[in-house]
Amino acid sequence: MADPRKLSINQATTRAQWSLEQAIKGYARHDVRGIAVWRDKFAECGKAKAAALLKDHGMRVTGLCRGGMFPGTDPAQRQAAIDDNKRAVDEAVAIGAECLALVVGGLPGASKNIGDARKQVRDGIAAMLPYARAAKMPVAIEPLHPMYAADRACVNTMGQALDLCDELGPGLGVAVDVYHVWWDPELERQIARAGRRILAFHICDWLVPTRDLLLDRGMMGDGVIDIAKIRGWVEAAGYRGFHEVEIFSAENWWKRDPDEVVKTCIARSIEFA
Amino acid sequence: MADPRKLSINQATTRAQWSLEQAIKGYARHDVRGIAVWRDKFAECGKAKAAALLKDHGMRVTGLCRGGMFPGTDPAQRQAAIDDNKRAVDEAVAIGAECLALVVGGLPGASKNIGDARKQVRDGIAAMLPYARAAKMPVAIEPLHPMYAADRACVNTMGQALDLCDELGPGLGVAVDVYHVWWDPELERQIARAGRRILAFHICDWLVPTRDLLLDRGMMGDGVIDIAKIRGWVEAAGYRGFHEVEIFSAENWWKRDPDEVVKTCIARSIEFA
Repeated sequence: MADPRKLSINQATTRAQWSLEQAIKGYARHDVRGIAVWRDKFAECGKAKAAALLKDHGMRVTGLCRGGMFPGTDPAQRQAAIDDNKRAVDEAVAIGAECLALVVGGLPGASKNIGDARKQVRDGIAAMLPYARAAKMPVAIEPLHPMYAADRACVNTMGQALDLCDELGPGLGVAVDVYHVWWDPELERQIARAGRRILAFHICDWLVPTRDLLLDRGMMGDGVIDIAKIRGWVEAAGYRGFHEVEIFSAENWWKRDPDEVVKTCIARSIEFA
Repeated sequence: MADPRKLSINQATTRAQWSLEQAIKGYARHDVRGIAVWRDKFAECGKAKAAALLKDHGMRVTGLCRGGMFPGTDPAQRQAAIDDNKRAVDEAVAIGAECLALVVGGLPGASKNIGDARKQVRDGIAAMLPYARAAKMPVAIEPLHPMYAADRACVNTMGQALDLCDELGPGLGVAVDVYHVWWDPELERQIARAGRRILAFHICDWLVPTRDLLLDRGMMGDGVIDIAKIRGWVEAAGYRGFHEVEIFSAENWWKRDPDEVVKTCIARSIEFA
């Protein structure tokens, strides 16, 4: 059983219903003390107000979403991405986030060269990492499910993310999201390899059938992922942080009363995570 | 450029429009000399008639689809799957197929234990393989994209399929379908490792966006896969067989004039494969 005091909710889970202010107050109302924040919602709220709200409600920020999107069709586009990642580091610092999560980006433009996109990702992270190190902001590469390899992230396994960590060094770690990695036959071994480089642990569930590649994630317990088993591996690797619920669900959870969503996150994380 | 004399079409590509008889005649009419056959269409046609049609039109059968689906909720269900795979071997022999393709199956019943499902797959293949060997019918494990891990196939990478080949020995190989494996950072290395164990090479394309997990595959050239590069790796590994177009496309290619589909397969495989 997951420790309910370590529950965080990624505000994407209620993004259709709540602003950042509403999410902070709403999660806190149900005694949830962790939140992952999205940059657009943060900008909308304003830095000073967001910081005050988080402090007043005793919320930990388990991550800022998101940096990344490094590949570009020309050097100017790639430099713009690096600059944006530096701004994301600043925002993560401003909000007191425990890490900046990276969704690294997919194939730029009309490219079919995934090997080259992966090199661009490596180069992009290498270029922004010194800035993050100087700001003492840990950077978490989030490997995304292979079905997003073309358009969202060409880092698709834990092994690949950890190879980047090995190559690029301190300040870099991984975000383990069960949705993206549950299928990987290497998962247990790669989580052990990650060790203390696990900077975040995200939970939700894989529905059968899955009706949409992006917006049909399931609530814990409604799908096929053995979340508790994966949590056990993550904890065995030394992870002691929050477990963060992140559910993109256009046709279900985004249409429900957000207080019901939060209550369900709590109950299901106790039962299934 | 792919050699057009080595083009095969998997009859799934025109399954909404054509019976097996129509597909054999239709493909041959456009001088395509390879076909992959589905068991339901084969049964509908009848063994003797199918064999005669294939012979009369000089068609090579690049694969029978499909065996597999090994995991089951109890021993009786798993034995039924093994028995069905033996029948599939008989059918593959009857039709002169170059291999029997396996879609190995996913999580049985309400199981969340993908490790156990993978063991059941190994045990199922081990149980049917002696029968296939005796019949001299090569068996091709087809790793399926990780998005099918729950409901179709829990063998999701070339590396995993080749581990099974290493363990279970002669008579077993792999089917490389670019749709399933194009994203894999290990792909080039695993194709080289496969060597002559590559029994089939399937082509189509990954569309951006992909609107349906199962039935929205693209025609070569309409997506992001560098098919020619992967074909080069497969040929460097020693593969000299056909390249087989397999497109599940409920909303596009299955709604078109099948002669147009065949002509497009030919033109696009020359240009993009």
